[in-house]
Amino acid sequence: MSLLVVGSMAFDAIETPFHKSEKIVGGAATYIALAAANFVDPVNVVSVVGNDFPEEEMQDLRSRHINLDGVEIKKDQKSFFWSGKYHLDMNTRDTLVTELNVLADFKPVVPDSYQSSEFLLLGNLNPSVQISVIHQMKKRPKLIALDTMNFWMDTAMDELSEVIRMIDILVINDSEARQLSGEYSIVKAANKILEMGPKFLVIKKGEHGALLFNPSNAFFAPALPLEDVFDPTGAGDTFAGGFMGYLARTRDISFENMKTGIITGSAMASFCVEKFGTERLRDLTHQDIENRIRQFVDLVHFDIELV
Amino acid sequence: MSLLVVGSMAFDAIETPFHKSEKIVGGAATYIALAAANFVDPVNVVSVVGNDFPEEEMQDLRSRHINLDGVEIKKDQKSFFWSGKYHLDMNTRDTLVTELNVLADFKPVVPDSYQSSEFLLLGNLNPSVQISVIHQMKKRPKLIALDTMNFWMDTAMDELSEVIRMIDILVINDSEARQLSGEYSIVKAANKILEMGPKFLVIKKGEHGALLFNPSNAFFAPALPLEDVFDPTGAGDTFAGGFMGYLARTRDISFENMKTGIITGSAMASFCVEKFGTERLRDLTHQDIENRIRQFVDLVHFDIELV
Repeated sequence: MSLLVVGSMAFDAIETPFHKSEKIVGGAATYIALAAANFVDPVNVVSVVGNDFPEEEMQDLRSRHINLDGVEIKKDQKSFFWSGKYHLDMNTRDTLVTELNVLADFKPVVPDSYQSSEFLLLGNLNPSVQISVIHQMKKRPKLIALDTMNFWMDTAMDELSEVIRMIDILVINDSEARQLSGEYSIVKAANKILEMGPKFLVIKKGEHGALLFNPSNAFFAPALPLEDVFDPTGAGDTFAGGFMGYLARTRDISFENMKTGIITGSAMASFCVEKFGTERLRDLTHQDIENRIRQFVDLVHFDIELV
Repeated sequence: MSLLVVGSMAFDAIETPFHKSEKIVGGAATYIALAAANFVDPVNVVSVVGNDFPEEEMQDLRSRHINLDGVEIKKDQKSFFWSGKYHLDMNTRDTLVTELNVLADFKPVVPDSYQSSEFLLLGNLNPSVQISVIHQMKKRPKLIALDTMNFWMDTAMDELSEVIRMIDILVINDSEARQLSGEYSIVKAANKILEMGPKFLVIKKGEHGALLFNPSNAFFAPALPLEDVFDPTGAGDTFAGGFMGYLARTRDISFENMKTGIITGSAMASFCVEKFGTERLRDLTHQDIENRIRQFVDLVHFDIELV
């Protein structure tokens, strides 16, 4: 089993109503890989960084069986940098700074050693970059998942439509689902999006949980009610990493097994928000994860006897 | 088994972004009784109406084993009237008109024939009115549930605190829980509110489901994802009616059984929003309800094998 992840590795500077971080390591591929590496070995990463990305960071990721052979280091450029500030609800945020740097002309190359990856997760990137990765795979992966965002709906809808037709699972949030479909009702939005190509659709609703759809079924997983959300950055990527990591480990892509994948992703995301950046994801034990998943079971389990 | 319900019976005029109703029958007690009557017989109602409240309406309710002996008819006054307009999200609304009429000096009297009611649901009313009902009960009911709203937190917090100390379950929505506790985090809000007296707390989150708390457990029930929400008016009361109706039928007030009550209430609320006002609640069959509850089971059920 192996999972190929394509996405950004970056620096973030994060402000919440209560705290403010230094420039810390972030990026979709970083969160995805850290989450997925709890379930699957290896996690093969394709990304790009600049001369400022810390070597200790690369070593730490490698020590977790995260393969970085596909990470290009551009010696004369800086890494992607994002800075944002969360509102009081911890759900909405303003972007303060976006410096694309190395990401501006990112042309991912999938190493030969990654060609046997059975599962592919395309993190949020320019859809034409996502398409080029799929084209580089000599054998189509068993399952391809894709994340995207409203920016690409505004600026590259043709390419986005094209890549959506090529993949198996689209993973987006509720406002993105509404924009992509032009429907306010989440159920209508899901039906329209499933007609655009993917066999499965995951709609993330942040603190309100996540929904999984295929044309004939729906499944709902709550988010764990938490006392404090310290920093929501990366929660969506962590969710996707836990979800795909679980599927890659079990190699079962049935709707039933995806339900468990959704719960697993939700559990991973619930850890992510407990500390700044990727911090909490780095000190997790197998037992922590198992206990957290049991909390999800307790939270939603009920026996019903119809009266 | 019997359930005593205290609340308004009223006229509503409702505008949604897509439709507009005539002046139609509404009121918390009406929704609660219609929902609960599917599970418990009789539903004993204490309320007040004016000379304009239709006799056919009273007969229809009576035909459903809803006992109206405790409904005072004030011959020289009009019934409570509320008019509101929903925003595009169908979740928030503006009140256009509130005419208290008979509700302005409502002094509920619990008839002797209601004294054996084992379950009591106090719909949203002035907390001093809610207190007077509890004081009239010669034997304390097995379970007392209370609904309230932010208006009473702003204007009658002392009386509200008093009644909250007297009851077993508080049923409020998320913004009310935040205001009542002064905490933004729903988990912190729940902990604070449980310290105010009630043994159980239900937090309704509209389209995002509902949470049940006691000091040591939490349970989450989703709302059913619906293609269309036609009119959300009364959904919260219908939820409470289904919840308490189920508890009164089963006479089991354990946390485990309340979970099933929450699912039952959520199922009833999912019907309520499908048509204007109380319309959908009037043509439900036992089979409709059973099928809907099965949809909830399918929506949240998963088997997990920890890996």
